[in-house]
Formats: sequence, structure tokens, C-alpha cells
Amino acid sequence: MSASLGRRLVAEGLGTAFLLAIVIGSGIMGERLSGGNSAIALLANSIATGCGLSVLILVFGHISGAHFNPAVTLAVASQGEFPWKDVVPYVAVQVLAAYAGVAAAHVMFDEPLFFASTKIRTGPGEWWSEGVATFGLLMVIWACVHQRLAAAPYAIGAYIAAAYWFTASTAFANPAVTLARAASNTFAGIRPHDVPAFIVAQLVGAAAATAVMRWMGRTIGLR
Amino acid sequence: MSASLGRRLVAEGLGTAFLLAIVIGSGIMGERLSGGNSAIALLANSIATGCGLSVLILVFGHISGAHFNPAVTLAVASQGEFPWKDVVPYVAVQVLAAYAGVAAAHVMFDEPLFFASTKIRTGPGEWWSEGVATFGLLMVIWACVHQRLAAAPYAIGAYIAAAYWFTASTAFANPAVTLARAASNTFAGIRPHDVPAFIVAQLVGAAAATAVMRWMGRTIGLR
Amino acid sequence: MSASLGRRLVAEGLGTAFLLAIVIGSGIMGERLSGGNSAIALLANSIATGCGLSVLILVFGHISGAHFNPAVTLAVASQGEFPWKDVVPYVAVQVLAAYAGVAAAHVMFDEPLFFASTKIRTGPGEWWSEGVATFGLLMVIWACVHQRLAAAPYAIGAYIAAAYWFTASTAFANPAVTLARAASNTFAGIRPHDVPAFIVAQLVGAAAATAVMRWMGRTIGLR
Amino acid sequence: MSASLGRRLVAEGLGTAFLLAIVIGSGIMGERLSGGNSAIALLANSIATGCGLSVLILVFGHISGAHFNPAVTLAVASQGEFPWKDVVPYVAVQVLAAYAGVAAAHVMFDEPLFFASTKIRTGPGEWWSEGVATFGLLMVIWACVHQRLAAAPYAIGAYIAAAYWFTASTAFANPAVTLARAASNTFAGIRPHDVPAFIVAQLVGAAAATAVMRWMGRTIGLR
Repeated sequence: MSASLGRRLVAEGLGTAFLLAIVIGSGIMGERLSGGNSAIALLANSIATGCGLSVLILVFGHISGAHFNPAVTLAVASQGEFPWKDVVPYVAVQVLAAYAGVAAAHVMFDEPLFFASTKIRTGPGEWWSEGVATFGLLMVIWACVHQRLAAAPYAIGAYIAAAYWFTASTAFANPAVTLARAASNTFAGIRPHDVPAFIVAQLVGAAAATAVMRWMGRTIGLR
Repeated sequence: MSASLGRRLVAEGLGTAFLLAIVIGSGIMGERLSGGNSAIALLANSIATGCGLSVLILVFGHISGAHFNPAVTLAVASQGEFPWKDVVPYVAVQVLAAYAGVAAAHVMFDEPLFFASTKIRTGPGEWWSEGVATFGLLMVIWACVHQRLAAAPYAIGAYIAAAYWFTASTAFANPAVTLARAASNTFAGIRPHDVPAFIVAQLVGAAAATAVMRWMGRTIGLR
Repeated sequence: MSASLGRRLVAEGLGTAFLLAIVIGSGIMGERLSGGNSAIALLANSIATGCGLSVLILVFGHISGAHFNPAVTLAVASQGEFPWKDVVPYVAVQVLAAYAGVAAAHVMFDEPLFFASTKIRTGPGEWWSEGVATFGLLMVIWACVHQRLAAAPYAIGAYIAAAYWFTASTAFANPAVTLARAASNTFAGIRPHDVPAFIVAQLVGAAAATAVMRWMGRTIGLR
Repeated sequence: MSASLGRRLVAEGLGTAFLLAIVIGSGIMGERLSGGNSAIALLANSIATGCGLSVLILVFGHISGAHFNPAVTLAVASQGEFPWKDVVPYVAVQVLAAYAGVAAAHVMFDEPLFFASTKIRTGPGEWWSEGVATFGLLMVIWACVHQRLAAAPYAIGAYIAAAYWFTASTAFANPAVTLARAASNTFAGIRPHDVPAFIVAQLVGAAAATAVMRWMGRTIGLR
């Protein structure tokens, strides 16, 4: 990462804003067009997010690392792969940009800039889902770091597309995304009251995956 | 680009014509088969366009650059990455070939060669959508240029597949495509009256992305 | 191609048989499950075929060239890229294996080994569709040959997935496939009476694309 | 494979558990949301499995070989490409982890940890389907081994996505997966009584593909 902190923050901001615009916008479009069949809406939502996320990582990975996710920033910092002093600015920009992306999508679809979601997402099944989803995400990311995989953008996008379907929560797996989705009373929203438990589950999943994968990586002499 | 201008124009023409045949043809097929569920039609339309566009860039990228899009031609010329004297022939061929592609699809589906669309696509939400969609497209393209990404064909196709869904306008993001789609009163059409505002929004989005990404690229020593 | 003719024919045979099993089988499954919504059936059919074809080219390309298609075999032989003496055995194996693949799919779904299709696919729109579809297929293949593209398997699979949707005929684009699909009265079938015109259109499209692409390739010094 | 057996077993276990969580979880989600249209549910199920499997192979391939499948472990051991002494631990971990993955998915969706499936999957068509599906899977895997394909993760994921559709059984193609899916009375389940015949068909298919592909590989001087 040879770019200055300012440029890296612009990259994180643009990437996170586009990610949220994709998640929220494709959710609205899917729900409006699918005539009440939520599986078709989620198919559109998951394909758009998977494709979009992989492209955003291709675009910004070489500048900022393309975290777009406080759980990722914390995980890599905890292992000495990212400077601690940059964690606060990264997370701040990720959260602000996530809200900006939500607003950008709302303007496209003639919705209010922000309006709190009423979608209930709570209970042990959902929390376990978020823990597993974020464990899997960090498992993929650490494997990409260890192997310096050129296919990392594809792997992360494809993982998220799958995780939309195999978890009961549709795999938020990202605290900044979770916060911002609470400000959208649309297909991809989450009731603000349900946010804190999601974020706790995400951080626990990320920490567990980091412990397992770093142990596995070190023991076989990987970076 | 070692090919002569004539060969490059044939490549731009074939690629743009196929792109429009794919957009229009898969829209007609999707609408005819989906029994009124527009989400299924748009799923087919977006997957076909994303796959097709990435293949066309693989096929013609090394000959003509595979712009297929006046906004792209103008953007790269504005930064000295493309000769200004070739802009007019490129844009002329892109527009003519776009109409030819529309006609080719219409013949396949037993429709008139050309017939004006009556689909209303207007209002601030749609214009903002086109601006964001084209900003994103150029953001992806400049990142591919800066990094000389081998994955560029994939990135651009996947971006457009996502953009069909996350924008309210289904992401035309291309003035030649917009003009030609006005001549098709089918799923992918746009009322001729609504074309100029779309094109203005596209050019503004392209210019903004070019400014941001070139600044970001220069400051980190990229090409 | 260092493999003996016998091994190359086994590769062509296995690949073509699997291709037909995929086309016919996924068509049956799609139609049975989709409750009368043909767009969903075609979505399954096109995704399965695109994924499957790209894998078969990865598997057998380095042994036999992975033609699986008499139009391809004739096109590459016509340009000195394939020995004329191998054309008849290749085409014979492709046709026989195509029928074997149809039978293999029929056994899976408890259908008769062979039964003539009653699905009408005729008229100028369909013929033009087959011409354009096969033109596009050979356009992609020649571009892959000229550039020695490692992404060729992806390009060809993605092209066919798109062509299912943007052509009115769903892009057979292959005389061996067309013959064998006439022996299946299922989703992907074609009335035997309609086969000859499809094959003529395919050969015309293949010849036209070969002429255009070889001219373009030669003039820019490609192989 | 420089990793110790312990680490390789952890990799096999994590990978197989995630694979089953994906298969079962996306099946439940697809069925719950699709309003009775099984084609839409299977579309979600197949896309999630194809994407997820390819990612898991990218993540764990370099550590354990990413078999996740006793038929694969037996096949590669039979050809001297894997130590016989590691077969029993690999298969044991695969089976146990498969059950763990099923339970993990059940917890997410508030289902019992395990409950026997009542879904009937029997008869010659289904057995032939499993034989063909597993033949194809090993055909792809041996081709990847022979050519040391970097695209192996993509090839195997895309093959399975296609095989969900072109076989009447939806392509279990894996004895550990088959056993564990019998413990889930959900979309992806199989009646325990029907398991043995599936496993026999899978092993026969794997053996046949191994014989054919090793013969073909040896005769052209591949590894």
C-alpha cells in the first residue's frame, strides 16, 4: 500500500458507498419487480452483491486493501498486517460512506434519504448465522492473504453470494453495513434495535476465524 | 493498438452491434417467457448482458480497445490515452452499429426493424441513477487501465450485471446504447423524449469519475 | 495436440456426450420444476449449459481441441488449423456421442431412449437467429485462437449462456447438437423437419465469421 | 502438501462442514422464500453450492487437497496420488464434519439438530444419475490433476452447479454428503433407506472415470 492515507480513505469510502448502494438498490429493485416472490428478489440481490463486491475489490484492493468492513480492518490490524493508527480513520470512513451509499440508493428509487427499518432480525438462529457468516468471510480473507491469491476478489464475492442463501440472516457479516442498513426500511433493512447483537456476533465470528486461520497458516510456514 | 483504423472500426462496430443485439434480444426473450414477472425477465436480461459484454471485451479489446461507448471514448481521449482524431469515427461507428444491433435482434424476434419506444424513463431518480451508473463504469475502467488488469473484461461485465439491479434506470450508462434503445418498443426500450437527459447524466458521471480516478491514479504513481 | 487420434476421439466423444446430457437434462429438470414459467426453465437451462460447456473445454481442450461441434471442426480445418483427414472421424464421433448424451439424459429422467421432438422451430426469425448465433460463436473462437486466450473456456461458455437469451432460437449453433436434440421430445427439442434449415444457417454463420475474423487477424499480424 | 496430518484434517473438516452448511442452508432458504416454485429454490441452491464449493477449494486446496469427499480420497489414493495411510482419517473427518455442517445449518434456521429425511430418492433413473454425476466429477478432477489447472476451483464449482440441473438426483456425487443429507428433513434431504444405493452408484461412477481418465492421461504423457 504505497498510497497516502488520504487516498486510501477515498478508496475505502468510494468502495463502501458503492457496496451499500448495490446492496440496498438491488434489494429495492428486486422487491419491486418480483411480484411478492422473495426468492427471486434475493436471487437478484445476491447476484448483484456478489458481482459488485468482487469488482470493487478489483478496483480498490491495490490502493486501500478494499476492506469496506470494520471487522476486516480490526482482524488484519490484530495480526500486524495493518497499522493500528489507521484503524480509527478507516472505520470512521467505512461507517460514514456506508450511510452515504444508502442515501445514494434511496435517491435513485425516490425514497427518503434515511428511514429506520422495521424488519425484525433477531433470535439465536440469526445471531448464530451472523457468527458463521463472518467466520466464513474471515476464513476466506485469511486464506487469500496467506496464499496471496490473485483470485481473492472472485473468492470474496462468490462467498458473499453463497452466504446470502445459506445463512438465515442473509449474511450481513459487516458492522458498517449493518449500521447503515438499519437506516433503510426496504428489502435489505434491519430494525435498529437488532443491530447491536448482529455486530457482536460478527466480531466474535471474525475473531474465531482469525485465531483458527492464523494458527493454520503459521504452522505450515505461510506468511 | 497496432491495428489500422479501418480494422479497429470493424471491431468497434461488430462489438457494439452484438452488445445491442444481446441487450434487446434477451430483453424480448425474457419478457415473452416470464409470464409478467419482470424480475425474472430482468434477471435473464442482466445475466445475458453481463456475460455477453465480458466476452465481447475479451474478443475485441486487443484490437480496438473495446469501448463500444462514446462516453468511454471521450473519457480516454480527454486523458491522452486515445488519439483525438479517432474520436469522431469511433463514435459514429458506435452509434450506427448500435442501431444495426437493434435491427438484428428485431429480425430474430419478428419485430419491425425499428419502432419508437413508449417506455417512460424520466425524473431525478432516473437521472441520478444514470450519473451514478456511468460514474461506476468509468471508475472500473480507469482502475483497469491503471493496473493493466487482465480481469478487466470480467470486471466490466460483472459491474454492468450488478448495475442493472442497483440503479432505478437499469444502468444504460452509454450514449450510443441509449440512442439505439429508443428505437425498440420492447422490454429494454426508452422513450426518445427521455434520451437527452440520460445522455447528459451519463457524460457528467463519466467526467466526474475520470477526474476522481485520474487524481487517485496519479498520486500513487500509476500510469 | 500430441494425443493419438484414438484418444482425441474419446475426448471429443465424452465431451460432446456430456454437453448433450447437460442441455437435455437441465431442460427437462427446469421444465418439470418451474410450474409452467418457461423463463425460469430457460434460466436453469442456460446457466447449466454455460457452466458445463466451459468446464468441458477446460477438461478436454488440451487433448482434442474440444470442438464438440462439426461447424467448428470444419471452420478450423478450412484455415489450415486442423488436419482435413481428421474431419470425418471427428464429425462422426461428435454426432454419435451427441445421440448417446441425449439417451443418457433420457435414462436419468425415465424417458424413452429416443423420441422425436414435436417442438416447431422454423421461420426466417429462427434461421437468422441461428446464423447470428453461430457467427458469434465462431467470432469468439477465432479471437481465442488468435490471442491464444487462457480465458477461452470461460469466453465460450459465457457466450453460449448469453446466446440462449438473445436469439429467438435459443442458439443451437451446432449441427451435431441440432441433430441429437431432434431425438428428444422435451424442453430442448426441435422437430426433425426443422433441422436441415437450422444446420444450413449455422454453416453460413460459421463461414461468414471465419472470413471476417481471419481477415481481421491476418491484417494485424496475429497467428 | 507440506502441512501436518492434523492441520490437513482441520482443513478437510472446516471445508466439508461449510460445504454441507451451504447445501442444506441454501436449500432451506430457497424453499422457504420461493412460494412453492421448486425451480427457483433449486436455482438458489445450485448457485450457492457452486459458488461456495469453488471458494472452499481455493481456501483449503493448498493445505489438504480439498477433497471434502470420500470418493475423491479413494480415487486419488488408488492411483498413488495420495497416501493410503491417510485415507481412513480423511474419510472419518469428512463424514463427521458433514454432520456438523448439517447441524450448523439447522441451528441457523431453528430446525432440530438432526431429523431423518422423508424425501424419496430411488429407482434406476436416480442411480444412473448418481453414477453419471460422479463420473463427471472425477473426470473434471483428474483433468485438473493432469494439467495442474489453476482454474480447478472454478471448474469443480461450475461442474456441480450444472450437475444439480442435468441429473435427476441433483448430483449428490459424494458419500459423506449423502450420509449427512439423510439427517435433514429439508429441501436437500434424502430418505436414509435410499442412501446405500446412492453411495454404490457414486463409487462405481468414480471408479469408471478414474480408469478412463488415467488411461487417457498416461497415453499422452501427462502426470
